[in-house]
Amino acid sequence: MKKVVLLRHGESVWNKENRFTGWTDVDLSEKGVEEAKKAGKTLTENGFVFQKAYTSYLKRAVKTLNQVLDVMNLDWIPVEKSWRLNEKHYGMLQGLNKSETAAQYGDEQVLIWRRSYDIAPTPLEMNEPRSPRQDIRYNELSDAQIPLTESLKDTVDRIVPYWKEVIAPSMKKYDQIVVAAHGNSLRGIIKYLKNISNEDIISLNLPTAVPYVFEFDDNMNLVKDYFLGDPEEIKKLMDAVANQGKK
Amino acid sequence: MKKVVLLRHGESVWNKENRFTGWTDVDLSEKGVEEAKKAGKTLTENGFVFQKAYTSYLKRAVKTLNQVLDVMNLDWIPVEKSWRLNEKHYGMLQGLNKSETAAQYGDEQVLIWRRSYDIAPTPLEMNEPRSPRQDIRYNELSDAQIPLTESLKDTVDRIVPYWKEVIAPSMKKYDQIVVAAHGNSLRGIIKYLKNISNEDIISLNLPTAVPYVFEFDDNMNLVKDYFLGDPEEIKKLMDAVANQGKK
Repeated sequence: MKKVVLLRHGESVWNKENRFTGWTDVDLSEKGVEEAKKAGKTLTENGFVFQKAYTSYLKRAVKTLNQVLDVMNLDWIPVEKSWRLNEKHYGMLQGLNKSETAAQYGDEQVLIWRRSYDIAPTPLEMNEPRSPRQDIRYNELSDAQIPLTESLKDTVDRIVPYWKEVIAPSMKKYDQIVVAAHGNSLRGIIKYLKNISNEDIISLNLPTAVPYVFEFDDNMNLVKDYFLGDPEEIKKLMDAVANQGKK
Repeated sequence: MKKVVLLRHGESVWNKENRFTGWTDVDLSEKGVEEAKKAGKTLTENGFVFQKAYTSYLKRAVKTLNQVLDVMNLDWIPVEKSWRLNEKHYGMLQGLNKSETAAQYGDEQVLIWRRSYDIAPTPLEMNEPRSPRQDIRYNELSDAQIPLTESLKDTVDRIVPYWKEVIAPSMKKYDQIVVAAHGNSLRGIIKYLKNISNEDIISLNLPTAVPYVFEFDDNMNLVKDYFLGDPEEIKKLMDAVANQGKK
């Protein structure tokens, strides 16, 4: 039996302010840190002992992972970080308050940008200060790989190869791994694993810092998947995410 | 110009209680966390931007590194962890209060155990609960590699190959790296880099969480080395370490 735990980062300071974050490297809020610690405690209580961890290049995911591993006394396990696990890039919307954007463009346009499968927000320019091209952490990426905006489809298209080529093959060596990432990058993995349609993936709202367990047989066929925690509390958290961006 | 920064972890809860720690996985104290943050601030102010980090399997070193990288907004850089960077193994002394040990064995014996180059404390047994053999993080080590006690010489002998085979070669790719580790494992690296005698290395007392910079030319010849920070403050910190273990 192989287990992969997907974990969306805890609340960030921009989640709290209801801003589009995307690739902006904002920190966890105090609440986000506590959510991460709670996830670590839940995982320990359920007997998880990870042998390897994956995370993105963004500090809200890295720090969520660090907190989880520390609570589990697994600070020592190898961690691999990849830009491919980053959040969806929100283009020109990054930094804007979601309610303001809704007031300006209307609920409908915002909902299209946030929740349509293949429509991306207005892109940044390659050379403006907010462009990933201006950030040394993405020096390894070619101009063609640098996203200036992304639809959910674009995000899925950069995540799935990383799952297939890096994470899944590592399960030959490991029995339990954790992937600490973001709402949309994790949607990409879940869409692939559960063969979810373009329409249905849009309404999947992952709660923050609730461990989502995927169990596989030794040939990496998915056997079952479930959240760890109190079902009522999880439902509330998922509804809260779904209501973000409404006026 | 290549730069390697050696960083001893911040104060741990056992440093505070004056206990022999060695491979025991004790946490940072609150003060230790603050020391780590201060080191990150100093490094940022001095213009450091690391491309790679190394640390041990012990949480006081990993967490010191995590704090430093977070303050520097470098949470995303690759981190490699190795048991070879662990603290010296103190055998049967691990867990004992240093003042108690001194009262029982005398200042002289304690000083011999702590500060002689090639005399190791009484070893643990391979199968007792405190043995590294009972800890899953060392599963990759053969019985012959598992230390049950170490002299400083033993520690140096396991560190230097890691420097030569892993860290130094990585400087072909990177210009600036940081190694967050422990008083004695860092002594091993410093002894090798500066060709310090067995006698003299014993009296080198590294202050906690003060960045120690080594500059190399492009052929990895050492050009100069210096601590970052206020010289008077650093002298005080080094004296404090030297006085540990006295009644």
